[in-house]
Amino acid sequence: MNSHKGDRLVRIVFEPDGNTLQTSPGISVFDAAYLAGTKIRFECGGNGKCGKCRVIVKDQDHLTETTTHEKKLLTPSEIERGFRLACQALIKEDVVVFVPPESRVERRKIQVTGFERSLEIDPMVKKFYVVMQKPTLSDFKPDFERLIDALNDAYGLRCWEIDHELLKKLPYLLRNAGWEVTVTLWNDEKIIRIEPGDTSEKVYGLSVDVGTSKIVVYLVDLKTGETLGVGSVENPQTMYGEDILTRISYVITEENGLKRLQSRAVRGINEALNNACKEASVDTMNIFEATVAGNTVMHHLLLAIEPRYISSSPFTPAIKSPINVEANKLNIGINPSGIIHLLPIIAGFVGADAVADALSSGIFESKEILLLLDIGTNTEIFVGNADDLLSCSCASGPAFEGSQIKHGIKAVNGAIERISLNPTSYKVEYETIGDVKPRGLCGSAVIDVIAEMRRYEIINSRGMFNQTLKTPRLKKTNGRSEFVLVAKDDSATGQEIVLTQKDINEIQLAKAAIYSGCSILMKRKGLNDEDLSQILIAGAFGRYLDPENAKLIGLVPDLPTEKIKFVGNTAITGSKMALISKAARKQAEKLSKSIRYLELSADPLFRSEFTSALLIPHKDLSRFSSVSVES
Amino acid sequence: MNSHKGDRLVRIVFEPDGNTLQTSPGISVFDAAYLAGTKIRFECGGNGKCGKCRVIVKDQDHLTETTTHEKKLLTPSEIERGFRLACQALIKEDVVVFVPPESRVERRKIQVTGFERSLEIDPMVKKFYVVMQKPTLSDFKPDFERLIDALNDAYGLRCWEIDHELLKKLPYLLRNAGWEVTVTLWNDEKIIRIEPGDTSEKVYGLSVDVGTSKIVVYLVDLKTGETLGVGSVENPQTMYGEDILTRISYVITEENGLKRLQSRAVRGINEALNNACKEASVDTMNIFEATVAGNTVMHHLLLAIEPRYISSSPFTPAIKSPINVEANKLNIGINPSGIIHLLPIIAGFVGADAVADALSSGIFESKEILLLLDIGTNTEIFVGNADDLLSCSCASGPAFEGSQIKHGIKAVNGAIERISLNPTSYKVEYETIGDVKPRGLCGSAVIDVIAEMRRYEIINSRGMFNQTLKTPRLKKTNGRSEFVLVAKDDSATGQEIVLTQKDINEIQLAKAAIYSGCSILMKRKGLNDEDLSQILIAGAFGRYLDPENAKLIGLVPDLPTEKIKFVGNTAITGSKMALISKAARKQAEKLSKSIRYLELSADPLFRSEFTSALLIPHKDLSRFSSVSVES
Repeated sequence: MNSHKGDRLVRIVFEPDGNTLQTSPGISVFDAAYLAGTKIRFECGGNGKCGKCRVIVKDQDHLTETTTHEKKLLTPSEIERGFRLACQALIKEDVVVFVPPESRVERRKIQVTGFERSLEIDPMVKKFYVVMQKPTLSDFKPDFERLIDALNDAYGLRCWEIDHELLKKLPYLLRNAGWEVTVTLWNDEKIIRIEPGDTSEKVYGLSVDVGTSKIVVYLVDLKTGETLGVGSVENPQTMYGEDILTRISYVITEENGLKRLQSRAVRGINEALNNACKEASVDTMNIFEATVAGNTVMHHLLLAIEPRYISSSPFTPAIKSPINVEANKLNIGINPSGIIHLLPIIAGFVGADAVADALSSGIFESKEILLLLDIGTNTEIFVGNADDLLSCSCASGPAFEGSQIKHGIKAVNGAIERISLNPTSYKVEYETIGDVKPRGLCGSAVIDVIAEMRRYEIINSRGMFNQTLKTPRLKKTNGRSEFVLVAKDDSATGQEIVLTQKDINEIQLAKAAIYSGCSILMKRKGLNDEDLSQILIAGAFGRYLDPENAKLIGLVPDLPTEKIKFVGNTAITGSKMALISKAARKQAEKLSKSIRYLELSADPLFRSEFTSALLIPHKDLSRFSSVSVES
Repeated sequence: MNSHKGDRLVRIVFEPDGNTLQTSPGISVFDAAYLAGTKIRFECGGNGKCGKCRVIVKDQDHLTETTTHEKKLLTPSEIERGFRLACQALIKEDVVVFVPPESRVERRKIQVTGFERSLEIDPMVKKFYVVMQKPTLSDFKPDFERLIDALNDAYGLRCWEIDHELLKKLPYLLRNAGWEVTVTLWNDEKIIRIEPGDTSEKVYGLSVDVGTSKIVVYLVDLKTGETLGVGSVENPQTMYGEDILTRISYVITEENGLKRLQSRAVRGINEALNNACKEASVDTMNIFEATVAGNTVMHHLLLAIEPRYISSSPFTPAIKSPINVEANKLNIGINPSGIIHLLPIIAGFVGADAVADALSSGIFESKEILLLLDIGTNTEIFVGNADDLLSCSCASGPAFEGSQIKHGIKAVNGAIERISLNPTSYKVEYETIGDVKPRGLCGSAVIDVIAEMRRYEIINSRGMFNQTLKTPRLKKTNGRSEFVLVAKDDSATGQEIVLTQKDINEIQLAKAAIYSGCSILMKRKGLNDEDLSQILIAGAFGRYLDPENAKLIGLVPDLPTEKIKFVGNTAITGSKMALISKAARKQAEKLSKSIRYLELSADPLFRSEFTSALLIPHKDLSRFSSVSVES
């Protein structure tokens, strides 16, 4: 066939996307696809070496004959079924080309939250397999330039930065690998690892949430976005203080306190990381990035940044922008050349965890007005929608996490997670995690029992026990009232499980802090309860929480129950989103700049709102008409 | 005065640049200058606080009255002489404004080489003094963002990167400094130091040339471009090998050899640096960048990059691009957060020193064809002009630096630098450095004496002594001929100073390597001697070299003597150019990419050119018609 270019046109259709091209015959299927706008994978620069550009063509006689490269990389059965390598087959006549899923360059999507939010996978860290020509006297290009030119040829990448430690070994690495290596790139520009051969399938990341009480990590496959393992440990800083203010004063008063707290946080992350890696049989050297959410103090402590000025007015953090630090500088046990990315923060008490909450809850793109609460030792609250978001933070204390409650425990085996009382006999019915004998109450059960007590007027609106009640469950120990929930014989500890007057008061303080935060934010935005389309509750205890009971004790505004949703640990989910998606990471930075912050302690409404919210459910019963109890 | 905008125009002339603006009255002198294209300094954002925008106006009644800011920042005598702050004075009527030199934003120029090349001073490292507002409850911007916003307000800078070590201390630093600090920026984007108060005058850099034998540093004031101190030490690597090949084999054969050679180079730089700093009373903590030139092997050894592949075909270096490494990673004794910039290289044997040569000699922008030689243990040669440059390297050995020559010494006190012989009596006349008794011969004198011997036929064209010569100076020691230049009694050592047959042969090898490099480069570019407009000779010994003698021994092509110029140590000068000028640094990178490289050992002409060049001056006498000696 000797037709001149332009003599005659052929028409090529690419399926399943339907892209079409008319051009002169003699073009490769690969080039035609490129011109038609259909992206086909390749890793060898179109030299018939990688076998990634497989396509299926029924009319084989409309293409040139199978090349030796194709015979090497395709099985006879595949060739029979019409498989070709797009870079090898040239087009002679009109043809329809089917591009199978494995050959398509398209961004995979993954669902990252429990409520239908999905995300294109486009992580900062990627691996690329490249094959280079050996240097010769007529091609004496230096090793680094040889490598980056090869990356550019095969993938169109223009990286130019290399870690000094890696550069030292580069000449040896490339020669030892026979000039076939897999390069790990950060942000398509910085080379952080070079391995012999093709290891491009092994690329992992870590998303981290450093909570005041708990450190959670997800080990994530950066090719698929899947979470392969989860690790969770108590924050080892807890021994130096339960809450963030105690930890800051530890830093201020103890020599090397900051260094000690930092190394404890790192130790906790590494422990969780190692657990997750063991679970998934992943080598930590193949983890190249960790994204970290955490409140502002956890953020500063992890980076060993002086945190003292966060704790006193005007509560100024050192930095709000996102930060990238080399893993080896922080001793975090991923690949030492990997990057630790700290998500940006909003303010002194609305940290990177809150940015992650806003990101993964989707509140920032909602048309409807939403209220979002991430309940923990500090509770972050957001109200608004895509147009404008206002945030605040309140010190809700660790009561909802089981701390400061006499028989409170975390949501572990043996914890009562749901509980109800008989209105007349006051008999207690409960469910425990693991369906074993109870060891204590977790946060959701504490809310249940207080709601039930208020419901049946065992306590009044001020949270005080009704001393006229005729039941042996209500008794006094050392002169202080308490209510027996589980008898000695029924508990796993051999001790009674009780709820004390002090426990109730702790919960009142915590829920008053949270509710008054919600209320002030809404007032400052001129909103009423009716304006809210949903309340989203995040945090570890969310999924066990009974929304009716939450309303009854006055924890959240009195919205119809179906409008109250539990969204799980949005901090770790947001951290994961930033890990697997550059777009999400960019969005997080935008949010940290655009979300407004209200300093509750400086708001003139704060004192009266807080005091009114100490009552159960509230001083102003008109706010809780659906759940009000005669008192 | 209540004229509406547009009612009336005033005309403002700025002197000395003559820029003129017509506009409505009421505009500040500062804004008018900006619109007219005259740049006036400011550091406070035009708030009358920094006092940097001083101008002189004779017709004071054409401006608004002196403000309280001006009364604070200008002395009564200055006010009387017509000084105003440009940001405070508003224009009422036509006026001529004189902008004194200290208020002008203009790039200062400095002459960097001995032959009239000058350069705008625009270093990578600059210091900026900023004053911030204290955070309050209504302005709780975090510290880092407060700082970068202040830098942006005052200087239009958009930096965003901060060293992690610095960030750790940032909250304390800013508060301790009362929110008035001087920030050191690298490339206008990375914060590398923050100091309390205004230290903007103290900003220094270091230019370095790591030669195979010698390390030279210049301590440079980055505000003025002036060299404040010079340090020079023998390269401490010398004890592990005189030349680069010996050092590479040391790396290959000795465990930790690479680490040892690296630390020796660093030790040498630090010693030279400390000497220069002592001389100029500069604190090393105020040195924020060092630019380093050096041949490819010195470059690799300093960075501890595996150098072995440079020494065998195809002589491939690890990298040619410029490299920036933090000073603390290399233990170079400038500010630990400062940057070490390695100039780019061209090829395995044409390194960063050669790029510096090409940069500072100006050969890359010459219209005329030039030949440039940087003579050292390795000699780098360039030929061409702005259109195209071709380079090569030849192993000329250390003979010209006094090594391998029986009584050769470096150009130190007591070295004979110029020498001549009486044609008949063979009496020797010489000059020594320091005008003291001679201790030995430096490179230029060795060339002189061989040229004289050839001129008076004491040696023949093969470099062999004329054994028929009747003079007691020519004698044999252990059966080998030598020529006595200085008698025992006249020398500082009490020993004769002689030139041996072997010395002559060493010089023949060295000059043959250099000349054949020149010749092959010229042939490959199709050039004859007549096409050369100049020969530029760089290197330490250049300034003592007699061009006539250089031609007579056949070291360089036979051009008229006035066309042979000595350009000094172009490597350190080029390194300094890259230090004080971003444009020069960019130019260096361009040169490393555009200058072509010829591997002499792979050139088929090499063997015959080299052999012919072993004769004195050359086998082909027609090439040296101006200096030929009857033989």
